[in-house]
Amino acid sequence: MKYLIKIAYDGTNYCGWQKNEGVESIQGKVEEALSKLLKKNTQIRGASRTDAGVHAKGQIAVFEAETSIPADRFPYALNPLLPDDIRIVGGERVDDEFHPQKRVEKKTYEYLIYNSEFPDPRMRNFTSFERKGERKKLDIKKMEKAAEKFIGTHDFKAFCASGGNTKTTIRTIYDLTVCENNNIISIRVTGSGFLYNMVRIIAGTLIAVGEGRIKSDELEEIIRSKQRERAGKTADACGLTLLEIYYRNEYLKEKENE
Amino acid sequence: MKYLIKIAYDGTNYCGWQKNEGVESIQGKVEEALSKLLKKNTQIRGASRTDAGVHAKGQIAVFEAETSIPADRFPYALNPLLPDDIRIVGGERVDDEFHPQKRVEKKTYEYLIYNSEFPDPRMRNFTSFERKGERKKLDIKKMEKAAEKFIGTHDFKAFCASGGNTKTTIRTIYDLTVCENNNIISIRVTGSGFLYNMVRIIAGTLIAVGEGRIKSDELEEIIRSKQRERAGKTADACGLTLLEIYYRNEYLKEKENE
Repeated sequence: MKYLIKIAYDGTNYCGWQKNEGVESIQGKVEEALSKLLKKNTQIRGASRTDAGVHAKGQIAVFEAETSIPADRFPYALNPLLPDDIRIVGGERVDDEFHPQKRVEKKTYEYLIYNSEFPDPRMRNFTSFERKGERKKLDIKKMEKAAEKFIGTHDFKAFCASGGNTKTTIRTIYDLTVCENNNIISIRVTGSGFLYNMVRIIAGTLIAVGEGRIKSDELEEIIRSKQRERAGKTADACGLTLLEIYYRNEYLKEKENE
Repeated sequence: MKYLIKIAYDGTNYCGWQKNEGVESIQGKVEEALSKLLKKNTQIRGASRTDAGVHAKGQIAVFEAETSIPADRFPYALNPLLPDDIRIVGGERVDDEFHPQKRVEKKTYEYLIYNSEFPDPRMRNFTSFERKGERKKLDIKKMEKAAEKFIGTHDFKAFCASGGNTKTTIRTIYDLTVCENNNIISIRVTGSGFLYNMVRIIAGTLIAVGEGRIKSDELEEIIRSKQRERAGKTADACGLTLLEIYYRNEYLKEKENE
């Protein structure tokens, strides 16, 4: 039978989602816990390969298992076997055909910026720090205006790091908001899918807009240019969190306990 | 000359503020950096002895120094000498008579609770986790109602851990608010001063109120009883942050660069 689990993690101390020889990965830790629980070597397939230092509230992974454990009890069974920077926060049965990458309807990411004169050490692993001073105070209004330009279906080649392998660089962004609270600027973006480093390059571009180095009116032209060097820098990994992955309902079985 | 510095820290990896042989303390780390900068063994006196795991955004410490460094440049000079979980976020000249504990007008603390079905690993060191379920969903309205009962000048002996040495257990609470956002409950309290573990016992009591184990109407009676066992548990250290310490203005010299 095929199962889906939802995973939250603080990615600070990992080389990223993807398992690799000789390094600590989220995938590796979850497979270890799952293999111990099921008493059988078990491999998982993740929905999103988050980079080193990137966090998640709603990563998704699937695996095959023969077990009497009800799917919604997986969090309770697995969490005691995991380090405290990784938590299983949900579990369901899925159809045998379910594929965690191919069946994605949309994904939501959040990018956090700490914009103050000095960093808050509590936030150092979860925000990108931008010094707020005479010369570098981010203009939220300009960032909000620029954010709107991303919405829609575009070729986002200018917002794609080299190294990604994808057939097309066309993606749809459904929503992109910028808001500020207590010196923390939150950029929240929902789209059909994202190219390699796309959210971090969007964040870096919005930071450049907030600093006045890129004008919000230039954005349409930057997107059209398809030139990576026209967009902003790739913002630090630690500011990024994968919040939620949405699937089309027809691919999910009903929860067993409902 | 006497100087004041403002310090922010993630207290997770420290035994607390206070310097002690053989353990890592915030005070120890700041004295080390300061002694290196000033090329002279320099000791500091802190305003508040935060416990192991407790954080700060606005701890205050004072020291004597002969230096040409302008006070407001201390953050820039000291931060490169400190680990990244400690940051100096302000500096000023103060009168020779200035005492960081005796001259306090009021202090503000924040206590954060993560109230969800499963923990968010990113918040694990900065919130106390309370499982939200059928039986343990915190009732914010009741907590708000109970919070009001603390405001005013009372003998807070019931909210004081043994081990503190203080002449009187009477304190004034000016403000105490409870609010919720995205599963995070924030308790913010401002008072003339706080007894040993007082904020954590107030937080533990408000959690018990939110769970329905203590009624908000009982609070006046609990305060009057002066019995520690009538109040709630001492909530986890990691949820607590010392936000700000306020001094009477007459004790502060004007900033040099204003």
